[in-house]
Amino acid sequence: MAEPNGWTVLEEQFNPEQQHHSETIFTIGNGFLGTRGTFEELYPHEERSTFFHGVFDDVPIVFTELANTPDWLELEIVLAGERFELQRGEILEYQRTLDLRNAVLRRVVRWRSPNGHITRLSFARFASLADEHLAGVRVEISAENYAGSIKVRSGVNAGADNLGVKHWESLEQGGRGGTAWLHCQTRFTHIQLAMGIHLNIQTPHPLRRTTWDVCDRPCVQAKTTLKQGETLVVEKWAAFYTSRDRADPVAALKKKLASLPKLDWQNTFSAHCQAWQAEWDRCDVEIEGDEEAQLAIRFNLFHLLAAAPRHDEHVNIGAKTLSGYGYRGHAFWDTEIFMLPFFTYTRPEIARNLLSYRYHLLDGARHKAEQNGFRGAQYPWESAGTGEEVTPTWVPHYADPTQLIRIWTGDIEIHISADIAYAIWQYWLATGDEAFLLQRGAEVILETARFWVSRAEWAPDRKRYEYSNVIGPDEYHEHVDNNVFTNAMARWNIQTAIGLAERLQTSHPQVWKRLSRRIHLKTPEIQAWRKVADQIYVAYSPETGLIEQFDGFFQRQEVDLAGLEPRNRSVQELFGIEGTNQIQVLKQPDVLMLLYLLPDLFDEQTLRLNYACYTPRTDLTLGSSLGPSIQSIMAARVDRPLDAYETFIRAARADLFDVRGNAVDGIHGASAGGLWQAVVFGFAGLHRTDQGWKTNPHLPAHWQCLRFKIVDQGTVRVFEVKPQIGNLGRFLE
Amino acid sequence: MAEPNGWTVLEEQFNPEQQHHSETIFTIGNGFLGTRGTFEELYPHEERSTFFHGVFDDVPIVFTELANTPDWLELEIVLAGERFELQRGEILEYQRTLDLRNAVLRRVVRWRSPNGHITRLSFARFASLADEHLAGVRVEISAENYAGSIKVRSGVNAGADNLGVKHWESLEQGGRGGTAWLHCQTRFTHIQLAMGIHLNIQTPHPLRRTTWDVCDRPCVQAKTTLKQGETLVVEKWAAFYTSRDRADPVAALKKKLASLPKLDWQNTFSAHCQAWQAEWDRCDVEIEGDEEAQLAIRFNLFHLLAAAPRHDEHVNIGAKTLSGYGYRGHAFWDTEIFMLPFFTYTRPEIARNLLSYRYHLLDGARHKAEQNGFRGAQYPWESAGTGEEVTPTWVPHYADPTQLIRIWTGDIEIHISADIAYAIWQYWLATGDEAFLLQRGAEVILETARFWVSRAEWAPDRKRYEYSNVIGPDEYHEHVDNNVFTNAMARWNIQTAIGLAERLQTSHPQVWKRLSRRIHLKTPEIQAWRKVADQIYVAYSPETGLIEQFDGFFQRQEVDLAGLEPRNRSVQELFGIEGTNQIQVLKQPDVLMLLYLLPDLFDEQTLRLNYACYTPRTDLTLGSSLGPSIQSIMAARVDRPLDAYETFIRAARADLFDVRGNAVDGIHGASAGGLWQAVVFGFAGLHRTDQGWKTNPHLPAHWQCLRFKIVDQGTVRVFEVKPQIGNLGRFLE
Repeated sequence: MAEPNGWTVLEEQFNPEQQHHSETIFTIGNGFLGTRGTFEELYPHEERSTFFHGVFDDVPIVFTELANTPDWLELEIVLAGERFELQRGEILEYQRTLDLRNAVLRRVVRWRSPNGHITRLSFARFASLADEHLAGVRVEISAENYAGSIKVRSGVNAGADNLGVKHWESLEQGGRGGTAWLHCQTRFTHIQLAMGIHLNIQTPHPLRRTTWDVCDRPCVQAKTTLKQGETLVVEKWAAFYTSRDRADPVAALKKKLASLPKLDWQNTFSAHCQAWQAEWDRCDVEIEGDEEAQLAIRFNLFHLLAAAPRHDEHVNIGAKTLSGYGYRGHAFWDTEIFMLPFFTYTRPEIARNLLSYRYHLLDGARHKAEQNGFRGAQYPWESAGTGEEVTPTWVPHYADPTQLIRIWTGDIEIHISADIAYAIWQYWLATGDEAFLLQRGAEVILETARFWVSRAEWAPDRKRYEYSNVIGPDEYHEHVDNNVFTNAMARWNIQTAIGLAERLQTSHPQVWKRLSRRIHLKTPEIQAWRKVADQIYVAYSPETGLIEQFDGFFQRQEVDLAGLEPRNRSVQELFGIEGTNQIQVLKQPDVLMLLYLLPDLFDEQTLRLNYACYTPRTDLTLGSSLGPSIQSIMAARVDRPLDAYETFIRAARADLFDVRGNAVDGIHGASAGGLWQAVVFGFAGLHRTDQGWKTNPHLPAHWQCLRFKIVDQGTVRVFEVKPQIGNLGRFLE
Repeated sequence: MAEPNGWTVLEEQFNPEQQHHSETIFTIGNGFLGTRGTFEELYPHEERSTFFHGVFDDVPIVFTELANTPDWLELEIVLAGERFELQRGEILEYQRTLDLRNAVLRRVVRWRSPNGHITRLSFARFASLADEHLAGVRVEISAENYAGSIKVRSGVNAGADNLGVKHWESLEQGGRGGTAWLHCQTRFTHIQLAMGIHLNIQTPHPLRRTTWDVCDRPCVQAKTTLKQGETLVVEKWAAFYTSRDRADPVAALKKKLASLPKLDWQNTFSAHCQAWQAEWDRCDVEIEGDEEAQLAIRFNLFHLLAAAPRHDEHVNIGAKTLSGYGYRGHAFWDTEIFMLPFFTYTRPEIARNLLSYRYHLLDGARHKAEQNGFRGAQYPWESAGTGEEVTPTWVPHYADPTQLIRIWTGDIEIHISADIAYAIWQYWLATGDEAFLLQRGAEVILETARFWVSRAEWAPDRKRYEYSNVIGPDEYHEHVDNNVFTNAMARWNIQTAIGLAERLQTSHPQVWKRLSRRIHLKTPEIQAWRKVADQIYVAYSPETGLIEQFDGFFQRQEVDLAGLEPRNRSVQELFGIEGTNQIQVLKQPDVLMLLYLLPDLFDEQTLRLNYACYTPRTDLTLGSSLGPSIQSIMAARVDRPLDAYETFIRAARADLFDVRGNAVDGIHGASAGGLWQAVVFGFAGLHRTDQGWKTNPHLPAHWQCLRFKIVDQGTVRVFEVKPQIGNLGRFLE
């Protein structure tokens, strides 16, 4: 699937069976919108979708979802009376390429129509990173063995739906000349969208353009002729404004539409390429000696960059980026723990936007805490536009729709509040962005600490604070007590908040005064925090060196996971929800995840013991897609390079090879972010020391060189790691 | 809302607040399709819907629903550059009328545009009863104070959705001249629909028609001009064929489309009026002395006739006919017990179709019985296209969507199987349709009896058969034991089956041989049936004369229902689901319903005692819409004419005055059918005797005369009832 240049994802023939997988892979985006890789012309059963960050609308069961926006891409081509459709006629040549460097999706098709007319069509599309309100498609149409009329019809289509659910109601529309536009709004949240298109056409013969102002589907029809061997060029520009980014999106659109007839394709595309070049200058990872890994890391980083909000601090990146319907655009800890480190260390401006999203939605988290009888801020497990909890409570059973499955994560997978505080703290450590910490980050860290204190349960007989009835990162086990990950992260959150409060009191007394007054936080409360933090139970057995994932984990039934291979179903599908709850099988690393995030909590001997204990108990093949990348890092840390590479390559292939069978739902954003961490913190072993950042390489044997950059307190540092024994990496700049 | 002719429902001004109520009332239909009374031009927030019988598609939660079909009605008018839209400009005159006699919806509007141009528009629409694949709209457009260009755009729109859920995928489309057409199918059930339109236009000036073949929205644009005072006439014809009624719906459509340009409005409309006249000749009910009752009965019968399948025996009438989204087109006992008597006694051909639907879906009922561990046929509480149970298992709580309400009717409201057998038996008694009984009806009666026998529970200590854990007609009480209605109807079903089997064995041995072999029914099994039937427990207290609705009803808490008035919430809303279960309040008649269906079961004294007991305990105002009409009949039987009229008029107003606040969801079909029964079996007191049908009038005091017809064994009999004391009615023919 790769061209050897390391920058190109290639599809050499179209397979309708894998149509939706290809749509996900070939998604393009610019941090404002994402458009799945459907064709310009219609194709049966396609999932033709464009998502805009933050444009959520209400829906049953999952409460809210990113609304598939009116289609800007569609372009119908009628060649001498025959509609160009890949499901008819004969495909003589086909090639589709996603150029990761320039973020452009290209397709070349030679097609013989049912009447025998051969046409060569060459498509290119991009969503401009230089101007996020602009996207374009260019088609060259060459009549190879015939002459005839050519009709092109293209517009915007308000009939877009989310797998059958409609979200838009039209407000106004219009068009003239080569332009058509639409003003609409989401049905329930009333987010307005103004979008329009313009067709620029270069033809050797007379051209007639008409606007068909059809309700909900304004479009332009252009009609011309081609002689044999001649080529027609169609450039479609699309522009978008929403009421989220403009007070008057229609006025902004109309101004933009007026400029489109004069837009030069080459110049506009060049500006876009330059913007992407600037991203890659900061973010690229070079791997020599492993073509697959090289392409995979770039492919995954491309999708993270394509979904990263550059000018909006009120949105997050959903678990499936902007590339599919999975999880309906909701954001999880996937952002803070898996995707964010990549941004924090290469594009801290984007990390700041993403963390600001959580700050802006503090009131939603406060509301959740209050509803549950707690104080402070309890972040929702699934978050969308308002910060309210949007995890579905019940979902239909996949096999029997009269039955329902209760989803508990929204109720009791509470560790996310600490994960967000942790990500803020890491961002501050990496960037030294004091303004962000003082104005936004501190409030989140203090309010989440307050939640953890109020949520802690005093066990008088054991004289300690506990957290019962939770779900840890390993979601195979529900309603567990004292999940070590949760307890230790809660303690970390409270302790960090206490230290932060002290620092603010000392170094920023005015900031502290305003902040503590606003959130009614006084010294006695902080003193009480310390008492709780000191007594939070974090399980560890000095005899065995084992950290029991939660109370009683080692009493559950043992299962020979390796003995179940080869399998194509997850452990949960094999054993059932309740059955899986009763066995010692993890959906993803849990104790190891904790040891990754808080490496100083235990010594190396404990890490090795627990790695040996939990690794064979983890469903790394078909459990959570969040597992393999973290497992890879920990394997590298305990000097298991083969294991590290195996799990790394599994994460790398999650979407490109659809190894989990669900790439149709969208890019696995957490896996993509985890992949970067596996390279940088795993194979390169990058770590912070008193003398700054150092590497501790555990490169796969066939890797000849690994190069990447991070931003350290505002300074870009380049690392080059080679596999020589004892190589500790070195700065290139 | 009425014109004094007793045939016209009138709307003198458009009230956007009551938009959806008006849409329901002004639904037109021809037994093949129903189209809600939205305007031809678009209006914000309308529920623009057309439903075709039997065109169901899958949907979450409620499993299946009638798919809103691509819109055939829409017609956009642009007057000298301004789009005709009632929400803009000024409405100078407005009148909408539904002519019940001719089933035509008319609207006259004088409209001043924002630019001050005054136009008179006169609309008429009908769905042809003479040709159920045809519908038409006619518009006269008169320019009163201006001259200018007039554009009309109209087509078919595949973007139709069910309150946001899309059901259609397009297969093919096209058009030329004044014609546009579409071929599409439902997403999951793959029912194909071919539909097309043609515009015939009469204009004093040159006309230009163009077909805009826009994907999913093929349409025709016509452009002409008008001088001041001139009138333009637009006739839009729409034709429809589905894969349910044609092997090749596209071929049928194309043939039909070819005929539309020559179609004469007046002739086609006349044929439609004649077809309706034939219906009214059979079905009309005349009430002298009560204009409201006269209009109401015709309005309700109109909607039953508009939804009645005349050429399809594989469909039923949903609880909300074809006029709204309520209950998603699913059919309940509402058909057999409430609507069917009207058809059985006036249009037995339609009753036969409706009962045949149940016969054709016997396998679904057998499957349900088998799944539940029973034998025979257990009909689904809610039925759609396949005969499988389609009652939703869970629905979101109306106030808190994170909570779910368990709907139990699909599991345990089992009386419907007896209700269907009962309706078949009544049909046979009324029509003597031996062929139907032998070929279809008998199998249903035998298989439902078999279900009841296998479902009966032997209580050894009480030496009787019982039915525990059921819901009776009064759905305020769930999980009750020995609901008398259920037990007595079960016994009736088994006894009737035994008698039927004996009669078949004697009189139709060949039929019996084939049938009994097919359903594996042998004499010993029937003998065992008798033993069960003889010992089914039917509660009755000789001391009090009371029939306890179910075990322990009289131990539940008493509530002073009258003391809660005035109220605008149902008892269930006031007391909650569980609270209502604990009190002696009925959603609708239950014991009285039984005494209505099986009048010979108890004597008149018992009827009077139980009427007195249950009437003050029944939530007749806001309980079930099925209650008032039956209550009216029983009030008439116990000589309570004022009570009878009060409940009658409540049923009569259900939709016209929206007294229950939910007419937006569609016509209350059961209430409409119950209304006819209240007139015929209540006020007229029609009953079968050894000497044939007799009346026993209890007319409201102000009624001067009541006239209606029934078909008795194939002969139409006319009854005229006047309120003189002792008048027993008389035959006019």
